[in-house]
Amino acid sequence: MSTSHSKTLKELADLINCNFEGDPSLALSNANSIANSRKDSIVFISEEKYLKSVTESNAGAVVVSPDIAKRISKSKIISKNPYRDFIRLVELFNKDDTIFSIASSARIHPTAKVAENVLIGNHVVIGQGSIIKAGSKVHANSVIGKNVCIDEKVTISSNVTIYSDTQIGAESKILAGSVIGSQGFGYLEDEDGWIEIPHIGKVVIGKQVMIGANCTLDRGTLDDTIIEDGVKLDNLIHIAHNVKIGRNTAIAATSAIAGSTMIGANCKIAGRVSIMGHLSICDEVTITSNTLVTKSIDKKGTYSSGIPATEAGLWRKMISQLKLISRKD
Amino acid sequence: MSTSHSKTLKELADLINCNFEGDPSLALSNANSIANSRKDSIVFISEEKYLKSVTESNAGAVVVSPDIAKRISKSKIISKNPYRDFIRLVELFNKDDTIFSIASSARIHPTAKVAENVLIGNHVVIGQGSIIKAGSKVHANSVIGKNVCIDEKVTISSNVTIYSDTQIGAESKILAGSVIGSQGFGYLEDEDGWIEIPHIGKVVIGKQVMIGANCTLDRGTLDDTIIEDGVKLDNLIHIAHNVKIGRNTAIAATSAIAGSTMIGANCKIAGRVSIMGHLSICDEVTITSNTLVTKSIDKKGTYSSGIPATEAGLWRKMISQLKLISRKD
Amino acid sequence: MSTSHSKTLKELADLINCNFEGDPSLALSNANSIANSRKDSIVFISEEKYLKSVTESNAGAVVVSPDIAKRISKSKIISKNPYRDFIRLVELFNKDDTIFSIASSARIHPTAKVAENVLIGNHVVIGQGSIIKAGSKVHANSVIGKNVCIDEKVTISSNVTIYSDTQIGAESKILAGSVIGSQGFGYLEDEDGWIEIPHIGKVVIGKQVMIGANCTLDRGTLDDTIIEDGVKLDNLIHIAHNVKIGRNTAIAATSAIAGSTMIGANCKIAGRVSIMGHLSICDEVTITSNTLVTKSIDKKGTYSSGIPATEAGLWRKMISQLKLISRKD
Repeated sequence: MSTSHSKTLKELADLINCNFEGDPSLALSNANSIANSRKDSIVFISEEKYLKSVTESNAGAVVVSPDIAKRISKSKIISKNPYRDFIRLVELFNKDDTIFSIASSARIHPTAKVAENVLIGNHVVIGQGSIIKAGSKVHANSVIGKNVCIDEKVTISSNVTIYSDTQIGAESKILAGSVIGSQGFGYLEDEDGWIEIPHIGKVVIGKQVMIGANCTLDRGTLDDTIIEDGVKLDNLIHIAHNVKIGRNTAIAATSAIAGSTMIGANCKIAGRVSIMGHLSICDEVTITSNTLVTKSIDKKGTYSSGIPATEAGLWRKMISQLKLISRKD
Repeated sequence: MSTSHSKTLKELADLINCNFEGDPSLALSNANSIANSRKDSIVFISEEKYLKSVTESNAGAVVVSPDIAKRISKSKIISKNPYRDFIRLVELFNKDDTIFSIASSARIHPTAKVAENVLIGNHVVIGQGSIIKAGSKVHANSVIGKNVCIDEKVTISSNVTIYSDTQIGAESKILAGSVIGSQGFGYLEDEDGWIEIPHIGKVVIGKQVMIGANCTLDRGTLDDTIIEDGVKLDNLIHIAHNVKIGRNTAIAATSAIAGSTMIGANCKIAGRVSIMGHLSICDEVTITSNTLVTKSIDKKGTYSSGIPATEAGLWRKMISQLKLISRKD
Repeated sequence: MSTSHSKTLKELADLINCNFEGDPSLALSNANSIANSRKDSIVFISEEKYLKSVTESNAGAVVVSPDIAKRISKSKIISKNPYRDFIRLVELFNKDDTIFSIASSARIHPTAKVAENVLIGNHVVIGQGSIIKAGSKVHANSVIGKNVCIDEKVTISSNVTIYSDTQIGAESKILAGSVIGSQGFGYLEDEDGWIEIPHIGKVVIGKQVMIGANCTLDRGTLDDTIIEDGVKLDNLIHIAHNVKIGRNTAIAATSAIAGSTMIGANCKIAGRVSIMGHLSICDEVTITSNTLVTKSIDKKGTYSSGIPATEAGLWRKMISQLKLISRKD
């Protein structure tokens, strides 16, 4: 990202369709945190408790809601949704300045179809029959297998591995180190040991999906693993073969979904959640941190099984008591 | 993988040594799921409950057990183990079509010994003194350190890192992003802070081992970390220094084994299991999801400590009660 | 690492400032485990219970504490801290023999400043404006983004991704597959779905920090994510945006710290610990395996919520009892 030249208070207010108070020609060159703010910074305030730190900060201007605007004497942009509008200012000051190009060290199979306006980084490998559409970026040292289809404006970061047949929808992002479409963990037990179940399904990822760093999404056995539009996955998440995740569901870091489980739309799944295999979770379910889901959930609501930390001595007593009452039974 | 040309019902039945009923010349070109099946697909059925969906599917033929064969009017291959035999058909239709070759962009140390019939992908790096035996594949952008020995027919996927001295047995597979042989987490506490314990042991992996995507297996301090023949590890698994895992043990995703723990043969360890360090787990132990193992286990059987999810309000009451009874004590 | 030529017992004792007993000219060529020891090995013993195995081993010499020295008839080096001094011998016999060089297949941006005495491995990519100082090593296939600053004697292993603006202090190590500085998991909920919060903060890593394999450390939103000097992170650890970890804190494998949490200095955090977001943990806190921290901790001590494994039948009774007493309430 590049930091663009400065803009005036008036220009910024106009760009985000807000009113302003103060010197219209005040020059601002960055949208910043209160702690890092300088004279040429604009900051935001969403809660009254930050009034003092904003006031004492070096910030030249502030994005503020109408109800507390009068309590700040700095130049200000008045917004009904200060954080939302501040984000737009951050984006204005930090535009992506990628220049599309194809590195000569990349190895692109002659049958692959790579659009003109793309970024293909150094040492990227793109396999036979794969398609990279316009506006997409594949950063350095990533590997795209055979017959992969990457739609428009997709970003694939560095050191990512996309196995064959994967489909990735427009405007999706995959962060560094993630692995999409690897063989799932499926074995038949036999007298001779484990027999590997072939995985000929693929991974199908919708539009505007985010997949964090070092995630693993396994391909399906016969059918596909499906990630619907707008799903957001944090880092180090495991999605097993044949899982389906519904629209706009968000899952926080280190959670894991076992094979063939179907998760509904608009679910909020916290970090370190484990959902066992072959379950069905309905829409709009919230699951709190560290929960283990062992049965299907067919009623929206919040579900938990994480245990909050306790001082270690008391915790040992809790564990002993739990054992005692069970043995009494 | 390539989809081969079609075969007749009779040819398929003969190839897997089974009887068939129906048109011997029926042309089939893929082994597929019921949902994806077309006229030229063969599917399988292992449970009566799928009779209706098989019957209504487009599938041209089905692999079926003798007891329910009569209830299906489609062409069929009759098998005592329909899933097992169907897997063989999937493999027949999806043969690995890798052509052995060594990419010119790979960097292979002049002292490394690389067999003739191997695949070395683009931008692979192979270090001093390493050995890659016949039939092995090292896919694009993987890095093999010094003095690594990779036996015959091993598959190493993309973006894998194999540190120096690692040994990998025949027909083993390592999926994308995994790290084998990194320095373990060993420190001596000193008045000046942490003193790093050197790790001069290695990782020794047996035959027909599977290591999933984005796993980490640390090398030993003085002795080795050992993964015996037939072990199957899912994705995002952590194996610390000096761990030993016995023959045919399978471990599901995101589980972690701390340093110097010895796990027996034929164990089944579910996902998100944590096993603490310096323990010994005997053969044929089953550990269910989310369990924390804090003591050695010397008796085969099933062990648990994962708590199933509950509606959040009830869960808060359970936690309070647990605290209450402990304080009463 | 290379194994250097042999040294005599006297030479070794002198090098580590210890007394010795036995043949001063005894030739030793490796510091080894008891199990792997040969005639030319020196081993160590820190606990009386290993006396028998040391005595019966092939080891030519042993590092031993004064109190049990007399009970061993082998040649010996006498040390008040046998493990500590043995580690120094391991290091003496296994010196890093890296020859600094820059691989021709690396792609270094013309504006990057790379010192002379560095190792830049094959297919490494170094972005615009980045700095690599003397004595640092960036191993094969790693990617360093724009404006990254890597101080002296840093080691970055293979297949690592360092995003733009990251700062890494002297003598720190990052093991293979880790991702530093990726976009954090921050979204505003909106009627149209999730709005991505930009991340313009960076990751700042201090001196002598260890980051294990396949970790993920997210950059800050506006301010930075900060890892102070001497912090040690094991493998597969997740550090979210805007986290701060204090000096010399050690965290074991697969633990995860959610956004904006501040962790003090000299904490010991075991494996599979989850710490929720926006908390503050004071200095010198110990957290045991599998604990979920849901509130700030302002008193040093040990905290737990991990449940030890139990035979599965008894465990099911414990779970039922817990539900029963909660419903009674």
